[in-house]
Amino acid sequence: MKYGFGVDLGGTSVKIAYFNEEGTLLDKWEIPTDVRQDGVNILPDIARSLQEYVDQKQLTRESLLGIGIGVPGPVDDEGVVNCCENLGWGVFNVHDALGELTGLPVKAGNDANVAALGECWKGSGKGSKNMMMVTLGTGVGGGLVADGKIVAGAHGAAGEFGHLVLNREETEPCGCGKKGCAEQYCSATGVARLAQKRLERDAEPSVLRTLERVTARDVFDSGKAGDKVAVQVLEQYFAYLGEFLADVCCVFDPEKVILGGGVCKAGQFLLDGMMPHYLKNVFHASRGVKFAIASLGNDAGTYGAFKLALDAFG
Amino acid sequence: MKYGFGVDLGGTSVKIAYFNEEGTLLDKWEIPTDVRQDGVNILPDIARSLQEYVDQKQLTRESLLGIGIGVPGPVDDEGVVNCCENLGWGVFNVHDALGELTGLPVKAGNDANVAALGECWKGSGKGSKNMMMVTLGTGVGGGLVADGKIVAGAHGAAGEFGHLVLNREETEPCGCGKKGCAEQYCSATGVARLAQKRLERDAEPSVLRTLERVTARDVFDSGKAGDKVAVQVLEQYFAYLGEFLADVCCVFDPEKVILGGGVCKAGQFLLDGMMPHYLKNVFHASRGVKFAIASLGNDAGTYGAFKLALDAFG
Repeated sequence: MKYGFGVDLGGTSVKIAYFNEEGTLLDKWEIPTDVRQDGVNILPDIARSLQEYVDQKQLTRESLLGIGIGVPGPVDDEGVVNCCENLGWGVFNVHDALGELTGLPVKAGNDANVAALGECWKGSGKGSKNMMMVTLGTGVGGGLVADGKIVAGAHGAAGEFGHLVLNREETEPCGCGKKGCAEQYCSATGVARLAQKRLERDAEPSVLRTLERVTARDVFDSGKAGDKVAVQVLEQYFAYLGEFLADVCCVFDPEKVILGGGVCKAGQFLLDGMMPHYLKNVFHASRGVKFAIASLGNDAGTYGAFKLALDAFG
Repeated sequence: MKYGFGVDLGGTSVKIAYFNEEGTLLDKWEIPTDVRQDGVNILPDIARSLQEYVDQKQLTRESLLGIGIGVPGPVDDEGVVNCCENLGWGVFNVHDALGELTGLPVKAGNDANVAALGECWKGSGKGSKNMMMVTLGTGVGGGLVADGKIVAGAHGAAGEFGHLVLNREETEPCGCGKKGCAEQYCSATGVARLAQKRLERDAEPSVLRTLERVTARDVFDSGKAGDKVAVQVLEQYFAYLGEFLADVCCVFDPEKVILGGGVCKAGQFLLDGMMPHYLKNVFHASRGVKFAIASLGNDAGTYGAFKLALDAFG
């Protein structure tokens, strides 16, 4: 049996996990991400942490197949990252850099794509070869998996669903500078924005008016509790989300769509609300697409990262 | 050197071509598609035509790597077709059926996807590993190629771009039953429809009014010649097309987009008109996507079909 590491590199912390080749997570821990000095310490810190683990567990070099790592930015097939803004990184080859520091083969991927691969392999997408993960968090992002492999795109931007234009009448700009992007409606921020706009429209009483700042969670909680204004906001949200997912499915035609990110804490309630709008808008060939909530939580990234290494060196 | 056949099976005729393994088209011919009796004669007719060619050229079994075939409907990895309506076909395995008739290994794919693969391999996409083909014909369809391979989707519907919703205010239904699909604006039929609606709006003089029935070609020809109404229609068309391509690119992030179908006879004029609208609407990561007009014409299908066989058996 061979073993390896999955590393999920974020702007605040680095999640590291140790797996066997069957994909069983045997151990996991975190270290802080040191973004000072343009992130020059990040890879040495990871290498040191891995070496400490290897020493402590007395692992042999022969038992280790390699390291997979998800990075928060575009990365190409050869391991060249291209400006991970959160880390202060410019352009260099992660495979070479982390490989030299550890003496192990390294395979890197974009963090959103790697999380999608993790969910596809061991999470809610288990058993699906063609899968799409859509993350509904502060923004809207995701990843595509075709035939069990990440579809990265030519510029590492495949799965940047969030910037598909849903509403051509929008007057407020999206963070990307365009107007009417799906992210402006379907993200957690989008739910709060829809609520704010609804509250401003008239003076209908709502528990949401008693809050200093309305969050997506507030809207879902009050909607579930029957608050009429919150229910209206959610109906609008579900309509946007169903339309959005229908559009994306007609491009990629996945077997399964995994929804992740903060909004998905709403669980089955979210799926039930969205589904009629999806069915109304989807091309008939994709009516049978299955939807599920992500199940690996914060471990999706390390699972996917290890799978990258397993596919490359296993 | 090995050789093989590429077969592009359409509702009216079957295009057959003979290639060497470098992808040089050495010979090509057509036979009619016999759709009587639920298309029961189609594969036997193809097998007979191939056998005649083999006999005539005195080809040896050992020199032939196999047959690739594009079929007008969904087909899965194992070769099972699922209702090719144009042919009268139900559900059966093309690999097995054509394999038994010819004694050669067979690999089948959907015709739109296969044409995309052909353009990617030997046409305008040559040298691109991540490519998207968009066909602007009677309808709007296409295919995705990632890492040099067709992305078929879970239900054979990946690349069914035409049913992404572009206009949520549309009142007229698309052929698929939904309203506001890209196909209603971006197809050749869409150009004609936009022209019809523009002509009905007021009485502004236009050469288009002198025609009994306005086609996409009429609109492009009169627009190029400076007809003011046609220019307005084209501006509207380019805006829809640019928005549509921007949406699709943010899902798949191709290196290159190849435009095919009747509308593309307008060539560079089409690309120049569309491009500002694409750049206005696209997510920044995909600003560098290259556009080109398909170059293989009616041979794209046989090239792509042979490439399927080459990848599977070469």
